[in-house]
Amino acid sequence: MITVLCGGVGAARLLDVLRRTVEPSELVGIVNTGDDLVLHGLRICPDLDTITYTLSGLNNEVTGWGLAGETWRVMDELGALGGHDWFRLGDRDLATHMYRTQRLSDGATLSEVTAELGARLGCPIRLLPATEDPVATVLRSDSLGELSFQEYFVGHRHAVEVSGVEFRGASTARPAPGVLEALEAAERIVIAPSNPVVSIGPILAVAGIRAVLERRRDDVVAISPLIGGRALKGPADRLLVELGGEASAAGVAAQYASVAGTLVIDAADAEQAPEVERLGMACEVTSTMLSEPAGAAGVTQAVLGG
Amino acid sequence: MITVLCGGVGAARLLDVLRRTVEPSELVGIVNTGDDLVLHGLRICPDLDTITYTLSGLNNEVTGWGLAGETWRVMDELGALGGHDWFRLGDRDLATHMYRTQRLSDGATLSEVTAELGARLGCPIRLLPATEDPVATVLRSDSLGELSFQEYFVGHRHAVEVSGVEFRGASTARPAPGVLEALEAAERIVIAPSNPVVSIGPILAVAGIRAVLERRRDDVVAISPLIGGRALKGPADRLLVELGGEASAAGVAAQYASVAGTLVIDAADAEQAPEVERLGMACEVTSTMLSEPAGAAGVTQAVLGG
Repeated sequence: MITVLCGGVGAARLLDVLRRTVEPSELVGIVNTGDDLVLHGLRICPDLDTITYTLSGLNNEVTGWGLAGETWRVMDELGALGGHDWFRLGDRDLATHMYRTQRLSDGATLSEVTAELGARLGCPIRLLPATEDPVATVLRSDSLGELSFQEYFVGHRHAVEVSGVEFRGASTARPAPGVLEALEAAERIVIAPSNPVVSIGPILAVAGIRAVLERRRDDVVAISPLIGGRALKGPADRLLVELGGEASAAGVAAQYASVAGTLVIDAADAEQAPEVERLGMACEVTSTMLSEPAGAAGVTQAVLGG
Repeated sequence: MITVLCGGVGAARLLDVLRRTVEPSELVGIVNTGDDLVLHGLRICPDLDTITYTLSGLNNEVTGWGLAGETWRVMDELGALGGHDWFRLGDRDLATHMYRTQRLSDGATLSEVTAELGARLGCPIRLLPATEDPVATVLRSDSLGELSFQEYFVGHRHAVEVSGVEFRGASTARPAPGVLEALEAAERIVIAPSNPVVSIGPILAVAGIRAVLERRRDDVVAISPLIGGRALKGPADRLLVELGGEASAAGVAAQYASVAGTLVIDAADAEQAPEVERLGMACEVTSTMLSEPAGAAGVTQAVLGG
């Protein structure tokens, strides 16, 4: 079994690549919930949904987010009413959030709802929320004060300098059912090429999860989300710098050195390999561009063959 | 000023008729909230919405409920997910509920949100929820136990025999801001041709509202929702019988005798006039079919000219 710590888009791509080689039943995703929000009364889990949609073949390849064939009737009407339309929720996507919210209100757990949605939509891989307890990624900006993750990421399009990050609730949050078991049982634990700070950070902050990785460090492989020192998408590179680190493979290694024995970095960052090894990690160099055959093959090899 | 106690469809028609004669600024609707529900996390106020949509010219004339030009993308997707799709929420309508839910969550009151939606949608008449506190109309059925109003009305299409009704929360609910003032200031208080039991009942059950009507009884005109002893729409006739009364103009009079000095009944029920008067009410007989010119004129005359 391969257990993967997941943010959103990067993790969805990784799982989509790995399932070509690994039986889907042997893959488990443990997914960040720090980005979750309640908006219009609806419980929205962006990372769980991105992965579910992508692995169900429903993702929108053009926009890079959301569902294929999406329509925007509700959002258009909401905008006309003067409602919050900065967080774009398509008509199909809304059904997911309405389903989830009602089931949670009926007493179902987030794990149960995630499994139900996966089954209905056709997701072949078991996804577990990292925790069912509330964890909120909160960013601090000297100019704007506290921002929820989505205010930062979508509302301000992450064009805000961040001076701190907090995973509120994480220290008392318990891993969701099955999470510790999936980490213990895995032959290999993989950290997806997601944002180390705001996607993987909230998972590792849940009480007990980091400890398993530290103990199983030799079986943990992390994949750097940077290529040539830059994030493919999103603010991973800037956040690493703003929070006192480095936007480089070595900067990623510094985040993961205590929990992962191996870091997979892109060939464009090959000159950083000695730096990564100096931090005590094995370093695998390959193409990491998952949308390309060479990257898909290289990362699969690095994860499975190491 | 004319202040009207309102359920949904019948009240919307009445207000739409009255505004042809009365300046909209001189009309106030006090609207039932006992049918309100939270579904999929969304706060839904069916009576407030029906009236707002109708007076804004947005109502669907074909179905008799909901919005014109409505689409059903979200509901179709929700059904495909296995979610609750028995309470049909169109895409345009959903925007209303999402707006309301978010504004309430932001700290706005239901009165404020109602005014905002009215202004955005173009409702020319001031609508006030009867109360901002939770009041839930709960029906008891010997076979099914307790049913929320919408489970009864929509879920079971009111094809359930009812043995009791409760307006849960009403005795401690306070009238919304402006409600008592609108009742005190009105030259005439009108009880719309809505369901006396489940539409007007929850309004009268809110602490303090019934007392104003009792005191101002001579200025209160109620319009019977029955024509020839039958409800035009909905279960008013059956509920009157099932709860120990009569499906007749006299049965309606028995509901209203303590709060209204006058009952307007349809010409088809003219033979009931002596019975109504025996209960201590003046009785006006006219066509009450508001969709027809004679009914619109007759009811307007009875309300304004009495």
